Amino acid sequence: MSKELATRAEDYSKWYNDLVVKADLADHSAVRGCMVIKPYGYGIWEKMQHALDKMFKDTGHVNAYFPLFIPKSFFSKEASHVDGFAKECAVVTHYRLKNDANGGGIVVDNDAKLEEELIVRPTSETIIWNTYKGWIQSYRDLPILVNQWANVVRWEMRTRLFLRTAEFLWQEGHTAHATAEEAIEETKKMLDVYADFVENWMAVPVIKGVKTANERFAGALDTYCIEALMQDGKALQAGTSHFLGQNFAKAFDVKFATKEGNQDFVWATSWGVSTRLMGALVMSHSDDNGLVLPPKLAPHQVVIVPIYKGDEGLKKVSETALQIVAKLKAKGITVKYDDRDTQRPGWKFAEYELKGVPVRVAIGERDLANGTVEVARRDTLSKETVKADGIENYIEQLLNDIQSNLYKIALERRAAMTHEANSYDEFKKLLDEKGGFIYAHWDGTSETEEKIKEETKATIRCIPLNNKQEAGKCIYSGKPSTQRVIFARAY
Amino acid sequence: MSKELATRAEDYSKWYNDLVVKADLADHSAVRGCMVIKPYGYGIWEKMQHALDKMFKDTGHVNAYFPLFIPKSFFSKEASHVDGFAKECAVVTHYRLKNDANGGGIVVDNDAKLEEELIVRPTSETIIWNTYKGWIQSYRDLPILVNQWANVVRWEMRTRLFLRTAEFLWQEGHTAHATAEEAIEETKKMLDVYADFVENWMAVPVIKGVKTANERFAGALDTYCIEALMQDGKALQAGTSHFLGQNFAKAFDVKFATKEGNQDFVWATSWGVSTRLMGALVMSHSDDNGLVLPPKLAPHQVVIVPIYKGDEGLKKVSETALQIVAKLKAKGITVKYDDRDTQRPGWKFAEYELKGVPVRVAIGERDLANGTVEVARRDTLSKETVKADGIENYIEQLLNDIQSNLYKIALERRAAMTHEANSYDEFKKLLDEKGGFIYAHWDGTSETEEKIKEETKATIRCIPLNNKQEAGKCIYSGKPSTQRVIFARAY
Repeated sequence: MSKELATRAEDYSKWYNDLVVKADLADHSAVRGCMVIKPYGYGIWEKMQHALDKMFKDTGHVNAYFPLFIPKSFFSKEASHVDGFAKECAVVTHYRLKNDANGGGIVVDNDAKLEEELIVRPTSETIIWNTYKGWIQSYRDLPILVNQWANVVRWEMRTRLFLRTAEFLWQEGHTAHATAEEAIEETKKMLDVYADFVENWMAVPVIKGVKTANERFAGALDTYCIEALMQDGKALQAGTSHFLGQNFAKAFDVKFATKEGNQDFVWATSWGVSTRLMGALVMSHSDDNGLVLPPKLAPHQVVIVPIYKGDEGLKKVSETALQIVAKLKAKGITVKYDDRDTQRPGWKFAEYELKGVPVRVAIGERDLANGTVEVARRDTLSKETVKADGIENYIEQLLNDIQSNLYKIALERRAAMTHEANSYDEFKKLLDEKGGFIYAHWDGTSETEEKIKEETKATIRCIPLNNKQEAGKCIYSGKPSTQRVIFARAY
Repeated sequence: MSKELATRAEDYSKWYNDLVVKADLADHSAVRGCMVIKPYGYGIWEKMQHALDKMFKDTGHVNAYFPLFIPKSFFSKEASHVDGFAKECAVVTHYRLKNDANGGGIVVDNDAKLEEELIVRPTSETIIWNTYKGWIQSYRDLPILVNQWANVVRWEMRTRLFLRTAEFLWQEGHTAHATAEEAIEETKKMLDVYADFVENWMAVPVIKGVKTANERFAGALDTYCIEALMQDGKALQAGTSHFLGQNFAKAFDVKFATKEGNQDFVWATSWGVSTRLMGALVMSHSDDNGLVLPPKLAPHQVVIVPIYKGDEGLKKVSETALQIVAKLKAKGITVKYDDRDTQRPGWKFAEYELKGVPVRVAIGERDLANGTVEVARRDTLSKETVKADGIENYIEQLLNDIQSNLYKIALERRAAMTHEANSYDEFKKLLDEKGGFIYAHWDGTSETEEKIKEETKATIRCIPLNNKQEAGKCIYSGKPSTQRVIFARAY
C-alpha cells in the first residue's frame, strides 16, 4: 500500500493528521468539529479504557451514569465554572422537528421550545453535585467514589483529530469526602493512577505537577496535571485531577452530618482523561513510516504474514503459522494471521508498518526447511531470523523489550529537550530553536504569566510536585523567585 | 433496613418504580425524562455490556464511534426515517451562552446560532451511512461489521425508569453487505445472539419473530424482534434487528463495484438493545421482597455476613469467612464480605434481599464449632445449613441451579400466561382477565391491527419465526387467515 505520509521534518502537523487518517484511527465527520473514531482507533481506545477502568476499580471506584443534558440554571450556580464553559457549549432549545407547511422541508417546530434550555454536558460537576445532594446526608454516606465513561461536548473553534474536537470521549471521576485532607489525598492518588497508566501502558513519560491559578479548571481550588512532551517539542497535558474544595457542595447545598454531629459542606474532587490520549500516543512514538504502538495497547501485538507460491505452498506455511498462532494465544498475546490472497506480502508489510503492529513475523517456504521464521520489530525496524522452535517465548520477551524501549527513547528525548533558561532572551531563543520543556524562574504572578504567553505563546505547564527549591530571579520581571517552573508551547 | 415497597398485587407499576429506586438501580434526574443510573444498576449494565460485547466480537464485529450530532438535512434523506423520529428529538440550535447585558443572568447568545440545526442522535443510521460512503468503493470493502456503544435521545413524553427514558444507553450495530441474502442472514444472526443473551444470561425466555409493517423500524424492510413476557402479563420488546434493504444506501448514495464489475447499492442491517433490558430483568424475576438477580449478571453473586459478639468474636468468624472468600474468588465467583460494624445482621439480610444477591452466607460463632455455615438462596428464600468444608463447590453448583431455576420459572409463567383466542369476545376477555400472550388469527391488514389496538390497547407483538401454518378466520374481520400471530398489551 502507498503511504503518502508527510514526514515529520517537512510538516509535523500534516504528518500527524495524515497518520491518524491513513492508519485508520479516526476521520473528520460531516459534523463540524466532530470525529468518527474508526474501528482500529477504537480498538486502541478500548484497551486504554479497559486498563484505566481496572485501575479505578482497584482503587475503590465504581461506575455510574448521569444525564447528557444539564439545565442552563445549573451552570450559573458556580460562578467560575460557568465563566469557563459558557462560551463553548452546545445548547438544546427545542424538542421536535416538523414538516414545513410552506414546503421548506423539515424544520424546527417552534411550538416545541423548551422552557429552560439544556446544555450538552461539557463536564458533569453541576449535574452530579445536584444528584449527590440526594445521596449524602451523613458522614456514613461518604466517601462517594464514582466514575463515569461518557461523551462530552465543548464547542472548540479550531479542532484537530483527537487533540481538540467538539465532541470527545472521556472518563470523569467525581468523588465526595468528609474532609479536605481526604479529598486532597484522592486528588493526588488519581494523579498517580494517571501517571502510572500513561508511563506503563502508553510508554510516555510524564511530569506530575500543579497548575498555576490561571490554568486551573473552572471551579477548582487546585488542578494537578501530568504533562508529556511530544516529538516536536510541544507539551501535551495528558490528564488532570482537581481538588474542588467545597465549591460545588456550596453551589448545590450539599451538606452532611459529621461524626461530631455538626453540619458541614462536602469536599469534592474530579479527574479526567480523554480520547486526547490517543493523540499523545500517536505523537510520542510514531515515525515517518507510520504508527508505532506500545505492545500493551496494540490491537494486534503480532501479525504473521505467509510468503508462498500457490495453494500448496500456502497450505504448508499455514500449518506452521497456525501452530505459532496457537502458542502465542496460549500466552495471552493477540496475534493476527493474514493469509489473504488478495494482497501481496510487500503490501501487507507496509500496511502493518503504517498501523504500528509491534512485531511482524514472516514465514516462507524456505523457512520451513530451515526451521526458522523472520521476526521484524516495528520500533527499530530491524529484522532477525529466529528458530521457530520456542518462538513464543522469544516474542513474549520481545514485546516486553519493545514496551520498555519505547519508554526509554521517549524519556531520553524528553531529557534532550529539557533546558534551563536564566534570562528572557535565552528563554525565547530556546523556545524558538529547540522547543521542549524550559525550566525557568517566575515571580508567581498571573500578570507575568500572561505577558510571557502573549509574547511567546509559551505557558506554564506546571509547577512540578516535590520541586527543587532554589532562589532565583523571574526571567521576565526580575523579581525574586523560589523555584523554577516548567514552560512550553503546548497542544 | 426498611423496604417500604409496594407489592406487585397492590400496584405493579408502583412496585417496579419503588424497586428500581430503592434497590439503587436508577433514579430520576433533574432533567426531564433523563435518569441517573446508580452504581449498583450500572454494575449490572456493565455485566450485560461485557457479555454482549464478547458475543458481538465472537461473531466478527468491531466497535467504532460516530458523532452524537446529526445535521438536520441528513434526516430528511430517508423519508420514513424522518417521519419516525422527527417528533421526538432534541435539537441543538446555538453554540454559546453569555451573560445577559440587562442582568438576566446566563442566556443563550443569539449571535451564536448554528446555520444548520443539529439533532442529538435518536439512532445513527443517517450519520453512519453518510460515513460509509467514504469507506466503501468495492466488494472488497464489504462486509462492514461495526457496532457502537452510545447514548441516544428520544424525546418521550411519558417516561419510566429504564423502560422509556428521554436519554438511554444502548448499542447499535450497523452492517453493510454486498447482497440482500448476506444482510438478511446477518439480521437473523444478531437476533439469535440477542435471544441467546436474554435467555442464557438474563434467564428471560423470549419469542423470536418478525414485526408487522405497522411496527417496523422507520426505514426498515423487515424488523425482527425478541419478545418477553413480564410478571403482570404485559409484553416487552427486548431487542430488534432490522433488514434495511438498500434504503439508506440509496439515501446516501453508497454504491460499490461488484465482483462482476457493476455498480450496485449496498445492503444494510442495524440492530440494538438498550438499558431497557434492565427493566425487563427487574420485572421478570423480582418479588415483593426486592430484586432477584440471575447469578450471571449479579454484581455480587455471594455475600457473606458474619454473626458475632464483640471484636474477638468477629475476629474468629472473619478467619473462616475470609478463607471461604478466597476459595470462591479462586473459582471466579464474585463475593462480598460485609463485616461492617455499623449495621446489624438483620439489616444486612434485608438489604441484600432487596438488592437481589443470589446467595447469602451467614457464619456465626456456633457455626465455627460445628464446621457449618448457613446458606440462603434469594430465588426461593430457602435456607440450609451446609458443611463449611467444600462450601465453594456447593455454592458454585447452587449458582448454576439458581440461574436455571429462574429461567424455568419464567418459562412456566409464560406458558401459563399464553392463550389462544378464537373470537374477538374471547380475545378481549382474555386480555382483561388474564393478560399474557394471545395467539389469534389476523387478516394481515394494517386496518384491522389498528382497530384492535384502538379498541383494546393490544398490539401484534410479532409473527413468530417458523410459525405453525393453520387456516382460520381473523378474530376481528372474520376474513381468512393462514396463521396465528401474538397479541399482547406491551411496555
